[in-house]
Amino acid sequence: MKNGIKQEMQDIARGALEASRVLAGVSSGRKNAALKDMARALLADKPSILKANRKDLAGCSAKGKAFTDRLTLNADRIKQMAGGLLDVAKLDDPVGEVMRNWETPGGLRINKVRTPIGVIAIIYESRPNVTADCAGLCLKSGNSVILRGGSESLNSNIAIYKVLVSVLKKHSLPCACISLVQTRDHKAVDALLKLDKYIDVVIPRGGESLIRKVVSSSRIPVIKHYKGICHVYVDAWADLNMAEKVCFNAKVQRPGVCNAMECMLVHRDVAARFLPGMLKKFREAGVEIRGCDFTRKIAGWAKRASEKDFRSEYLDLILSVKVVGDIEEAVAHINNYGSHHSDSIITDEPEEAEKFLRRVDSACVYHNASTRFTDGNQFGMGAEIGISTDKLHARGPMALEELTTYKYVVFGSGQVRN
Amino acid sequence: MKNGIKQEMQDIARGALEASRVLAGVSSGRKNAALKDMARALLADKPSILKANRKDLAGCSAKGKAFTDRLTLNADRIKQMAGGLLDVAKLDDPVGEVMRNWETPGGLRINKVRTPIGVIAIIYESRPNVTADCAGLCLKSGNSVILRGGSESLNSNIAIYKVLVSVLKKHSLPCACISLVQTRDHKAVDALLKLDKYIDVVIPRGGESLIRKVVSSSRIPVIKHYKGICHVYVDAWADLNMAEKVCFNAKVQRPGVCNAMECMLVHRDVAARFLPGMLKKFREAGVEIRGCDFTRKIAGWAKRASEKDFRSEYLDLILSVKVVGDIEEAVAHINNYGSHHSDSIITDEPEEAEKFLRRVDSACVYHNASTRFTDGNQFGMGAEIGISTDKLHARGPMALEELTTYKYVVFGSGQVRN
Repeated sequence: MKNGIKQEMQDIARGALEASRVLAGVSSGRKNAALKDMARALLADKPSILKANRKDLAGCSAKGKAFTDRLTLNADRIKQMAGGLLDVAKLDDPVGEVMRNWETPGGLRINKVRTPIGVIAIIYESRPNVTADCAGLCLKSGNSVILRGGSESLNSNIAIYKVLVSVLKKHSLPCACISLVQTRDHKAVDALLKLDKYIDVVIPRGGESLIRKVVSSSRIPVIKHYKGICHVYVDAWADLNMAEKVCFNAKVQRPGVCNAMECMLVHRDVAARFLPGMLKKFREAGVEIRGCDFTRKIAGWAKRASEKDFRSEYLDLILSVKVVGDIEEAVAHINNYGSHHSDSIITDEPEEAEKFLRRVDSACVYHNASTRFTDGNQFGMGAEIGISTDKLHARGPMALEELTTYKYVVFGSGQVRN
Repeated sequence: MKNGIKQEMQDIARGALEASRVLAGVSSGRKNAALKDMARALLADKPSILKANRKDLAGCSAKGKAFTDRLTLNADRIKQMAGGLLDVAKLDDPVGEVMRNWETPGGLRINKVRTPIGVIAIIYESRPNVTADCAGLCLKSGNSVILRGGSESLNSNIAIYKVLVSVLKKHSLPCACISLVQTRDHKAVDALLKLDKYIDVVIPRGGESLIRKVVSSSRIPVIKHYKGICHVYVDAWADLNMAEKVCFNAKVQRPGVCNAMECMLVHRDVAARFLPGMLKKFREAGVEIRGCDFTRKIAGWAKRASEKDFRSEYLDLILSVKVVGDIEEAVAHINNYGSHHSDSIITDEPEEAEKFLRRVDSACVYHNASTRFTDGNQFGMGAEIGISTDKLHARGPMALEELTTYKYVVFGSGQVRN
């Protein structure tokens, strides 16, 4: 039986590769027409999708509120999925863009041209909306996609997948450019992750444990972020009103996401002025504070922060707080304890800002703004397939452009090398 | 003892990471001054380097001519190494370049800024010149480098490394931004390849077996090319004189390199006119031909090409030849049997050229030119640290820019997210 799954995954992957070679040559117009039609079809097939979703929901009532919320579809969420596909249709097609061109002394004209990557595998949790979102982004960027969602969402995913593939057929596009792994067997993922001959990149979307599992068993390159331990550093030259507003937003506005602040650093010179009001505000909002000794002198009610706290992504109304002696200590703390995701400095002193922005080794560094802006839509990319804290290929929010590679197209007139 | 090596590698890697954070902030002027001084120091220390090299050479007399040639240093080669460092000093520094900038509707100014990657490990064969070349390129691009050359070249590498590090010291740059693994124990490489916490990317340079070994045991992303199975396709609309000149150059001018042609494809309609003269010319140049049935009808003396031949990187005066029915067959052959490195079409018909250039899924695709131009220097990059047939991060020749990543630097005035 294991061999059966291996063979099945290989067939899917090989089909995806062949389809990707066709898709790479399809015009933007044809891709956009299919995307718009997929949006229409999702809305038209709402009843069958919701029926499948109810079946999924019935199967996992005991998994907790957050889990159920992610798994649940309703009319509004299907409308959002459809809207997402329409948005992607409107975005510029990155494929074919001449990124640079020049001529060599020998008269060769070289164009560096953006091309699709080829075959992308997405491994995600039981969130059926990801199925449509990722299929749309991959189609638009000319890539075949292999989707593997959480097994609890399989019925919903199959229903959505069927709608998308029927539209591919209608538009004479190769069906294999969108594939869904339709088994709950976890061996399917292991088998998939060995197929570096066919699959170019894996993008896991979900919690840290899912991502670590993918990384440890993949022979295919993975683009990922493990977690978001984001900092705001309130500098000695900070506008303290602004600092309070930004820190509050970064922690409280949506604590369960990767770009929320998990640790606040405060310069010693302003701690006594800044912390009492700030911590009171956090306390009133139900934020649990875990502070350094200095912090606890100001707020005796705060818990003591451990080493582990400074390495924790709470994804909750919990905040670690540390008072630092200078900007060097702040930068070193962020580089050592952070996750290279998003970090912000609040200061009115441009030199301090520059030091921070240059030295903090994170995908996104902010001056006088909330870390919550790290997001493909907020950055104006029009979409997001994930956020990378890796340094190769893509860093920060990833959208269409990050789903492409390039080739060098060289035009000669019979040149040979001496 | 194994733990000793693990600890040693971890110390090297951690030191490299710390040094990279300092190096990231060093000005182009200071980096260039060090590079120029390294060139001078290599020339000045020629005697000690040559002495170390003689020791290496004495240790491996039985390894064959090509091996010995790669290992051998002489006055001229040391001059070349020094010249390479001077060339790198002259190149533009990619670090700090604002690749793009825009403002969001909410008034955030976003700069996408080029930054060093961090720590780069280079695993290479017994070619001591690589030590200086890679150290120079990594220093200029602001990266720490960990060098691990073939064990037969250890004395030469140590001699070169000592010269480079003495210059780092003189210029008050952190010594750990250039490290050399100074043990012949192969466990050092295995230990190094596990340190994804400190090392951002591994670039193996050498034959396919070295590269496969690195890929299979690395937990760190690898940028590589396994081999170069490059094609020239002589189209039905080819200028046959040009085709003969280009094919001859692509095969014969330097057969031992990755961008040499290993397989020639010829459209059926011109095969009878083109092949007799072309194959005669190859034969006179000592090229062994392994052809399809059609080819062997024209050149009875040719060997029969097997499936294996079409997947072989000969790196020698051997050529497989196949007659194809149309451009589709040519493109399919290249995509299936090739190595996605460099492939060329010879044709005077622009539409056929466009089909080929768009559909052949290779790092470099050529129209009417020899595949031998795939090279950082030929492309005008001024240097080359390797060639990638991967699709993520870098494809084709890699130089300074390919040794960088980017970060988003976001300037606000107190923005928070709603």
